[in-house]
Amino acid sequence: MAKPKQLLSDEQIKRFVPSISIDCVVFGYLNKKLHVLLIKYKDTEAWTLPGGFLEHDAEMDETATNVVSLRTGIDDVYLNQFYTFSSLNRHWKHKEKDWKCLQTLITKLPEADQKPFEQLVTQRYISTAYFALIDATKVSPKPDMYGQLCSWIPVTEVPEMVLDHNKIVEKALIKLRKRINYLPIGKTLMPEKFTMSDFQTLYEAILGKSLDRGNFQRKIMKLGFLIRNEKLMTGAQHKAPYLYSINHEVYDKMVIEGVGF
Amino acid sequence: MAKPKQLLSDEQIKRFVPSISIDCVVFGYLNKKLHVLLIKYKDTEAWTLPGGFLEHDAEMDETATNVVSLRTGIDDVYLNQFYTFSSLNRHWKHKEKDWKCLQTLITKLPEADQKPFEQLVTQRYISTAYFALIDATKVSPKPDMYGQLCSWIPVTEVPEMVLDHNKIVEKALIKLRKRINYLPIGKTLMPEKFTMSDFQTLYEAILGKSLDRGNFQRKIMKLGFLIRNEKLMTGAQHKAPYLYSINHEVYDKMVIEGVGF
Repeated sequence: MAKPKQLLSDEQIKRFVPSISIDCVVFGYLNKKLHVLLIKYKDTEAWTLPGGFLEHDAEMDETATNVVSLRTGIDDVYLNQFYTFSSLNRHWKHKEKDWKCLQTLITKLPEADQKPFEQLVTQRYISTAYFALIDATKVSPKPDMYGQLCSWIPVTEVPEMVLDHNKIVEKALIKLRKRINYLPIGKTLMPEKFTMSDFQTLYEAILGKSLDRGNFQRKIMKLGFLIRNEKLMTGAQHKAPYLYSINHEVYDKMVIEGVGF
Repeated sequence: MAKPKQLLSDEQIKRFVPSISIDCVVFGYLNKKLHVLLIKYKDTEAWTLPGGFLEHDAEMDETATNVVSLRTGIDDVYLNQFYTFSSLNRHWKHKEKDWKCLQTLITKLPEADQKPFEQLVTQRYISTAYFALIDATKVSPKPDMYGQLCSWIPVTEVPEMVLDHNKIVEKALIKLRKRINYLPIGKTLMPEKFTMSDFQTLYEAILGKSLDRGNFQRKIMKLGFLIRNEKLMTGAQHKAPYLYSINHEVYDKMVIEGVGF
């Protein structure tokens, strides 16, 4: 395989704000399960989150969106910044496996890139992390030139990743799970009309646990962002479930104001 | 007044991770109102949040705690990291008033400090922000050598501050307000026993609005972290309010697990 042309000159590296990186946790709802989008580097067994660096004249939120778009082929993703990871341990030298992996990656680069790349990635990085939750059926992830695989992995089957990326996914999951207790969810994930059972499945996928059917329906309806429509037309009318849809006005208001007191 | 000895040699500046700063929003509950701790620079009208820089070998959370401790005299504060501010506009040159203020600050420094200080503070900073909520009656804030005043200001009366510090306070307030909808609050702010009315006043102070008495009591008791004790002994027994206390076991569990589904 032909090596790619030089990617990182010294000048290009100087375009980045030192010490700052970005990592993105893109959750996808797929086959009624919660997945996360991971990248596997070429020629190694190393898994990583889509990530990147911040240019001096760039805004961080836009950079994060570009990172996801460039590295995964997904456009128009709305990312929430959720935490900044800064531990002294988040360094390629902290785990021997990571350090070996980095050396392998470096040898695969065009020679002119090797030194600047090593300089770039072995700084201490403070990484601001973002997450998103998207309908995974609507996108086809594709890796960038460093990546080999770019895949939806069920959150229950996330492999060991480089640096502190497992911790980043765990923290994102905790944030997402807390978030659905005070913010509505589902607008971009559900079809126009759906059954209460479908909606409960979404919450169960995110929370990673089963919920009581009666309790769930009562709590959700009390929040007021679902509308009950006609019944789903199947066989017996009396057994047919109702169809629900999202009240966008209420939903959008709740996103800003939250729910609760 | 004698100028302080040199504070910032070139070597000292090199101890900091470039481009990274920390800002702390310390909310205090005082006289049944929500306050925030602000610093006013010497010889200027410039108000600022307590903040600082990150040393190469320091953890960020510990640094944030030290920032609050050193700049305000408050020990043992538990800070929550809540957002990282990175806008290109957060620079002393963005507002003329800020730039003038910085020049004034610089001229007041020992001459040897002036250049390194200007170099230090005019980088592009990505600032990770923390907040805490404390019992303001238990601490006496004191400023560091750069500060003149270090005061509890009611959140409804926050003056114009330098850089994006007003935005940081606003965002912290939004986070705090959303947070009390899914996490318990009050453990370090209330006396051992208190009336429901006292507890409602705390929530009203944080939310910045009045709450319906009946609704509040029903919601709070449903969360399960308050214990109802004996009545407050005043005159007429039938009119005396009940005293409540915090169930620490339930409270601590809820802090980790959240409330909701």
